[in-house]
Amino acid sequence: MSVNATVTVEVGLGDRAYDILIGSGLLLRAGTEISRRLPGTRAAVVTDDNVAAAHLETLKAGLEKGGIQPAVITLPAGEKTKSFAHLEEVVDGVLAARLERGDVVIALGGGVIGDLAGFAAGIVRRGMNFVQIPTSLLAQVDSSVGGKTGINSARGKNLVGVFHQPKLVLADTEVLDTLPIREFRAGYAELAKYGLIDRPGFFAWLEENWGKVFAGGPERAEAIAEACRAKADVVARDEFETGDRALLNLGHTFGHALEAATRYDSARLVHGEGVAIGMALACRFSSRLNLASPDDAARVETHLRAVGLPWRMADIPGELPDAEALLAFITQDKKVSRGALTFILTRGIGQAFIARDVPASEVLSFLRENHPGRQSRPGPQKSSPGQQKSRPG
Amino acid sequence: MSVNATVTVEVGLGDRAYDILIGSGLLLRAGTEISRRLPGTRAAVVTDDNVAAAHLETLKAGLEKGGIQPAVITLPAGEKTKSFAHLEEVVDGVLAARLERGDVVIALGGGVIGDLAGFAAGIVRRGMNFVQIPTSLLAQVDSSVGGKTGINSARGKNLVGVFHQPKLVLADTEVLDTLPIREFRAGYAELAKYGLIDRPGFFAWLEENWGKVFAGGPERAEAIAEACRAKADVVARDEFETGDRALLNLGHTFGHALEAATRYDSARLVHGEGVAIGMALACRFSSRLNLASPDDAARVETHLRAVGLPWRMADIPGELPDAEALLAFITQDKKVSRGALTFILTRGIGQAFIARDVPASEVLSFLRENHPGRQSRPGPQKSSPGQQKSRPG
Repeated sequence: MSVNATVTVEVGLGDRAYDILIGSGLLLRAGTEISRRLPGTRAAVVTDDNVAAAHLETLKAGLEKGGIQPAVITLPAGEKTKSFAHLEEVVDGVLAARLERGDVVIALGGGVIGDLAGFAAGIVRRGMNFVQIPTSLLAQVDSSVGGKTGINSARGKNLVGVFHQPKLVLADTEVLDTLPIREFRAGYAELAKYGLIDRPGFFAWLEENWGKVFAGGPERAEAIAEACRAKADVVARDEFETGDRALLNLGHTFGHALEAATRYDSARLVHGEGVAIGMALACRFSSRLNLASPDDAARVETHLRAVGLPWRMADIPGELPDAEALLAFITQDKKVSRGALTFILTRGIGQAFIARDVPASEVLSFLRENHPGRQSRPGPQKSSPGQQKSRPG
Repeated sequence: MSVNATVTVEVGLGDRAYDILIGSGLLLRAGTEISRRLPGTRAAVVTDDNVAAAHLETLKAGLEKGGIQPAVITLPAGEKTKSFAHLEEVVDGVLAARLERGDVVIALGGGVIGDLAGFAAGIVRRGMNFVQIPTSLLAQVDSSVGGKTGINSARGKNLVGVFHQPKLVLADTEVLDTLPIREFRAGYAELAKYGLIDRPGFFAWLEENWGKVFAGGPERAEAIAEACRAKADVVARDEFETGDRALLNLGHTFGHALEAATRYDSARLVHGEGVAIGMALACRFSSRLNLASPDDAARVETHLRAVGLPWRMADIPGELPDAEALLAFITQDKKVSRGALTFILTRGIGQAFIARDVPASEVLSFLRENHPGRQSRPGPQKSSPGQQKSRPG
C-alpha cells in the first residue's frame, strides 16, 4: 500500500448509504468527489477561524476543480460555538446563499463544526445534502460516522440535534499533521476504543503499530479506516441508538462525568482524554465486578500510558470533586434511562456489553477507591475486587 | 353514526405508523389514549395564550385520567412565535422538565404550535415522542398528517425544520366550535383541497354537505377523516417530499405569493384564504392552458364562494402589487426547483398533477389577466384561453 493510496469505507444504511474516503491529499480532490456524487451542486462551506487559516484555501482550490465556488461561513473556534445562536447564524448563511435542498453544506473542521454544520444541514429546508471533511483525528474516527449532529444546551452537551447522514466523508490524513500532538492523542483514544469494544485483533495491532499511526505512514489511514468500519458496523445495526449503538459510549459515562467535573476546561481535560480515562475506569470497574480479568484492565492502562494519554483520575491536573459529586454527574448524564444506571462494561478486550441497572452503590465505592484524593491508591497490577473493598472515611 | 362516535384513521408509515382519532370529547380522553400507547410516559404540553385559556384545563383533566401531570409551556399566539427564539424556549422548557427521549411533547394548538412543538420534539435528544392535539380545522386536516415541522426564517416561511412523525393525533371536533367562523372557513379550504387533488367524489359530497360540516354534525368528523385519509395516502407514498407529495401544494404557489404580497397581514388574508384563491387560480390557469375544462374551474369558484371563502384576487381587501411583482414572489417560493417553475395543475376536479417547467411568461400573462388592477376582468363563466390572449399594457 503506497502512502497516497485512498481507502474507501462504505457505510451501509440502505438509501442513506455513503462512502468515507480516507487518504492524503483529499482536500484537493473534494470538488471532483463531490460533483461526481452530486452533479451540478452548489455549496456552502462551514468552518472555524483556526481551520480556515490552515486549510480553507486548499479546499477552495479542490472544490474549484469540480466547478464548485462555495459560500463560506466562518465561525469562532471552540466548543461554545455549538449554540443556538451560531446554529441560527449558519442556517441564515445557508439560506442567504440561496441554496436549495439538493445543494450541499460542507463541514470543514473538527467535531464542533461537523456537529453544528450537520445540524444546520439537517434542518434547512427540512434536510439538505451534507458532506463532512473532518480535520481532527477525533472527528475522522468518531463524528464522521453515524449521522449524529447537534448543539449544546445550558442543561448539557449534545442535548439538541438530529440524525442526519452525510452523502460523503473525506478524511484527509495529511491535515492531521497540523494538529497539536495532544489533540492527536485525544483522538487516538476514540480510535483505540473500537478495539476495546469488539475488535481485539485491532487493539493488539495498535499495541504493535501505534507509533506508525502517530508518524503518519499508511498505517494511519488503515487505522482510521478500521475504526470507521467498526463504528459503521455498529451504526448499521442501530442507526437511531435504540440498542447496540450504546456500545460506542464505552468510556463515555465516566469520561463525561470527568469533563463536567473539570467544567469542560480544555487546559485540564479534553474530550478524548476523558474517554481514555473513562475506558480505563470502565475496564477496571468491570474487573472489580468480577466480569473481566484484571490483566485486561492493566493491558488497557499500559497502552494508554504508552501513547502518552492520561489513564487515571490522578492524571488530571488540579483537584477533582469527591466521589459523591462525580456520581451525581454520572446520574445527570443523558444516557441514564428512567433513573437506572446504564454502563458499558466489558468481559475483556474486545468484549464490551451494555449493562443496565448497575447499582449506584457499586459505582460510588469504585469511585472512592480510585479517587486521587484517597490516601493510598492501589496500583493497577495489584488491584482486585477482593482487595478493594475497604473504603475511606 | 352517533355524534360522539370516534373515527380512526391509520397513517401507514411502517415503524412510524400512527393513529389519528377524530371525534368529540377527545381532550378528556387524552390521558387514556396516550398512556395506552406510551405507558408510564411523562409529558410537556406546548400551547399558546389563546388556546390555553379555552382548552388547557380540559386537557389537563383528561391527562390526569391517564396519570399524566404535564409540564406546561405557554407561548404568545401568532405566526411570529415560529421563530428560533421561541424554539429555544420550548427546547429549554422540555429539558428543564427533565423529560427523556421516551417521554412525550404534546402540542395543543393550531398549526403554529404544532409546527413549533413538533420541531422541538424532533430535536430534543435527537427526537422525542410527539403527540398532536390540533385545535383548528386547518391543523386537523393539514399539519396533523405528514410529519412536517418547522419555524420561519427572516428569509421565508417554514424554511427550517425536520420531518418528525407524531405517535398519535387527537382531533377533537368539539373544540372547533370555539373557532371564529373566518378561521373555520380558512381550514375548510384545505379540506376541500383533497377533493380537488384526487377525490372527485369527496368534492361532490362537500358540495352537497358542506353546511353540515360547518354545523358540526357527524359529517364534520367524516369530512375531517376523509381529508386525513387523503393526505395520509399521499404522505405514505412520499414521506420526505421527493415526488408525489408536491400534489399537496395545490393552490399553494399562488397562495403563498398572495400571502407574501399582503405581507402576511391576517386582517387581509390568512393562509387558508390564500389557498382558496390559489386553488381557484390553479384551476383557472389549467383551463387557460387547455388542460382542464373551464366548467371545472367555474365549479370550484362557485363552491368556494358558496361557503363564504374568497376565490379571486379581487376578494382581497386593499391594493395588490402588480403581476410582475406577484411573479417575483412565486419565483422566490421554496418549491421552485433549480430555477424552473413547478406548479400543481389539474385536468379537472380530482385530477391534479405536478407540472414542471411551466413557462414564467404564461404565468405572468395569466396574472395580468386576472389582476384586480386590470380594467375589465373576464367573468369565470366567460373566460377561455382563446378569449384571454389580449394583454394589458
